[in-house]
Amino acid sequence: MDQVVKMVIEYDGTNFFGWQRQPKARSVQGDIERVLTKIFKKEIQIDGAGRTDAGVHAYGQVATFKSTIPMPLENLKRALNNFLSEDIRILTLSFEAETFHARYSAKGKTYVYKVLNTVDRDVFTSHYAYYYPYEVKEELMLEAISYFIGEHDFTSFMASGSSAQNPVRIIHDIMLKRNGDNLELIYTGNGFLYKMVRIITGYLLEVGQGKILPGKTLELFENPTRKYTTKIAPAEGLYLKEVYYD
Amino acid sequence: MDQVVKMVIEYDGTNFFGWQRQPKARSVQGDIERVLTKIFKKEIQIDGAGRTDAGVHAYGQVATFKSTIPMPLENLKRALNNFLSEDIRILTLSFEAETFHARYSAKGKTYVYKVLNTVDRDVFTSHYAYYYPYEVKEELMLEAISYFIGEHDFTSFMASGSSAQNPVRIIHDIMLKRNGDNLELIYTGNGFLYKMVRIITGYLLEVGQGKILPGKTLELFENPTRKYTTKIAPAEGLYLKEVYYD
Repeated sequence: MDQVVKMVIEYDGTNFFGWQRQPKARSVQGDIERVLTKIFKKEIQIDGAGRTDAGVHAYGQVATFKSTIPMPLENLKRALNNFLSEDIRILTLSFEAETFHARYSAKGKTYVYKVLNTVDRDVFTSHYAYYYPYEVKEELMLEAISYFIGEHDFTSFMASGSSAQNPVRIIHDIMLKRNGDNLELIYTGNGFLYKMVRIITGYLLEVGQGKILPGKTLELFENPTRKYTTKIAPAEGLYLKEVYYD
Repeated sequence: MDQVVKMVIEYDGTNFFGWQRQPKARSVQGDIERVLTKIFKKEIQIDGAGRTDAGVHAYGQVATFKSTIPMPLENLKRALNNFLSEDIRILTLSFEAETFHARYSAKGKTYVYKVLNTVDRDVFTSHYAYYYPYEVKEELMLEAISYFIGEHDFTSFMASGSSAQNPVRIIHDIMLKRNGDNLELIYTGNGFLYKMVRIITGYLLEVGQGKILPGKTLELFENPTRKYTTKIAPAEGLYLKEVYYD
């Protein structure tokens, strides 16, 4: 009988054209499906909790698939990690209820955005953090952050290429952490629109630099507009940290 | 008039076929020479303190070149870092005496070897540390380390492909540092034979596992032999940290 298996997945997104399966480019979904298909000797498709773009990393992406499972999950995990390349790792596998689905059952997500905030770039973090050499004032960023918390129409903070959808989301928390030159923004919410975390990060950094007043945020929520654009923070700083379920 | 310029260079070796210029493969030396040649509008060749193999990193490789320098070094550094790709960075530039040479004037070097010593591999360090999932006993490694300190004939610890040379070197210090799952071996000596740091690291890890007795080291110094082989620790864990001069 078919069972639903949940996978929690870590990956270094540097050498992938994103999560989503594509005919001619390397993707995380494509790599995992190919290995599962090899192990199960039949075609297996997986559903991810969300797509990540090229260069975006994950500490805890979630995906589900349905199949008869002919071996203990511990053995399946070992086989998967043996066959997968070193930039993908399966952290856990678990059986879930028949109705469980990585995307539809998700109640929220946490993303981390990492910034290297110093004058000199660092060769070892160029694919793992956004090199941002400008001085930012944290008190300005924190004021703007306070306006982001709660339920809002995020039309002003979605990518212009996004397909039509309900632009209302709840942000539960944005934590700002600094450790020397390393700045982290940790976003938790019930869901995020296309490129929303990178757009808000780019916006908050410009607020920190004094280029945008924190109060502008209130205005953008009162009069949502697709016309407003700021610099989008690049993919390499973004990590899907966790997906929440009931 | 020609002046001697010393460069201190940081690089992520992942996407290079090593330091040394090669006709058809990307090298750190080749990249820097191409940018210097572009800036100076004449061919510039640089000499490195030592070659690093494909995948080996540097926090402080040193190279020298001779030329008339038509601009302040601060401007030259900025121009170099602008033109170089993000996996190479010039840390400092300085004028040196006419007799100064990156390799011939070097008095010693420090290398760091990084090991991820835990059961689960980590996708983010696969190019930056040696994933070594076996338990190692530090007291065994420390005993072996004590035998390495000093002047020895390192014939037993050089790569079999090395060209004939004087195999005597002085190791001033090998520090063993553990921070959770991260193990570091920090080697300082007057010079190192080809692949010597990686060979000693592979050896020390096998000592830590209990596969080789620490006292074997004394025997290998008393009766140096090219026949003795152990697992060579891979390139990705190795960093040239510093080159010393008078």
